[in-house]
Amino acid sequence: MSPEIDDAILTSTIDALSEVGFQGLSIAEVARRAGSTTPAVYRRFANKAELVQAAVTREMDGLPGDVADQGTLRADLLGWLTAISQSLTPQRTRILSGLLMAADPENAPIVDIRDHLRRMSHEGWTSIVRRATSRGELRADPAPPDLSRIPGGLIVSRALLLEPPMDVTELEELVDAVFLPALMAAATSTSAPESTKENS
Amino acid sequence: MSPEIDDAILTSTIDALSEVGFQGLSIAEVARRAGSTTPAVYRRFANKAELVQAAVTREMDGLPGDVADQGTLRADLLGWLTAISQSLTPQRTRILSGLLMAADPENAPIVDIRDHLRRMSHEGWTSIVRRATSRGELRADPAPPDLSRIPGGLIVSRALLLEPPMDVTELEELVDAVFLPALMAAATSTSAPESTKENS
Repeated sequence: MSPEIDDAILTSTIDALSEVGFQGLSIAEVARRAGSTTPAVYRRFANKAELVQAAVTREMDGLPGDVADQGTLRADLLGWLTAISQSLTPQRTRILSGLLMAADPENAPIVDIRDHLRRMSHEGWTSIVRRATSRGELRADPAPPDLSRIPGGLIVSRALLLEPPMDVTELEELVDAVFLPALMAAATSTSAPESTKENS
Repeated sequence: MSPEIDDAILTSTIDALSEVGFQGLSIAEVARRAGSTTPAVYRRFANKAELVQAAVTREMDGLPGDVADQGTLRADLLGWLTAISQSLTPQRTRILSGLLMAADPENAPIVDIRDHLRRMSHEGWTSIVRRATSRGELRADPAPPDLSRIPGGLIVSRALLLEPPMDVTELEELVDAVFLPALMAAATSTSAPESTKENS
């Protein structure tokens, strides 16, 4: 089988998923978009669920992993937020939305995406914190709070509301107004601020 | 026209939207779910877009507004996060997803939802910060960072990934590890004099 056709079929599946969702997607439409034929798709995938799973898996393999050391905590955070913002595109939010509307309550593609995103966010966050700790920018104890889920949440929810992606200025504001203060507060205080402690 | 039928039609529209999305929704199906008839729906709404718009508007009117003063910044934040979590249910994330997949690029319902959520988050956040400032828990200058979009983003993105809603412990962790440190860091970052006001 031709790798070009393999590639075109998976790319067409992603495009169709983002436009019509899982329920609206048909093998015939994927074949048409790929410049191929329905039997050619069925030679590769037994059914729509397998086709979608393969396309989603390939899409996740293309996501960037760890962000390289940028020299400072601030630069690492900005690089990480930028990478997440570039990964969680409006098209990918549409794909997630379309998968969510699928009737299948097990929803294997979403479970895979969830596990993948969790692992990626956690790994990216952990290495940023580890590098900042070894540079002396953060303390190891108490451990800094885990903020790894915040960027993805903000980015995906904006796309869900048809807002444009965050630009560089907004990403910098997020680093400077939220991430660095929260991390620095944890690094410079051994307990909750006086004004809040009594209410805990 | 009977208000009971009005009510049943809008409720059925919301239910159908969350199950099959905008494109999958039919007036006939809404009528069936409402125990009514297609002509009865058309007597009220000219088309599917108007029906959906009315159902979404009613749904937003039912969202809680400001959180009442809970006495402390921490309690206010927790009450606000809890209210947001209870408002942005998994069903409503599905409705948003279904609307996002609608072919209409203008997408009036999403634009309305976006404006409504922005306004609500901003108002809730502003009154929490204002109360904390007047209690002496936060300083007015520099203004605390705007964290109003974070809870909705986290809550909706979890629902999009089929994760269960955050429980009380997780909401408390978010307040204690993210919100309070970020706010307190902003309030103490420029070697401020100790607050002269006692916190109650």
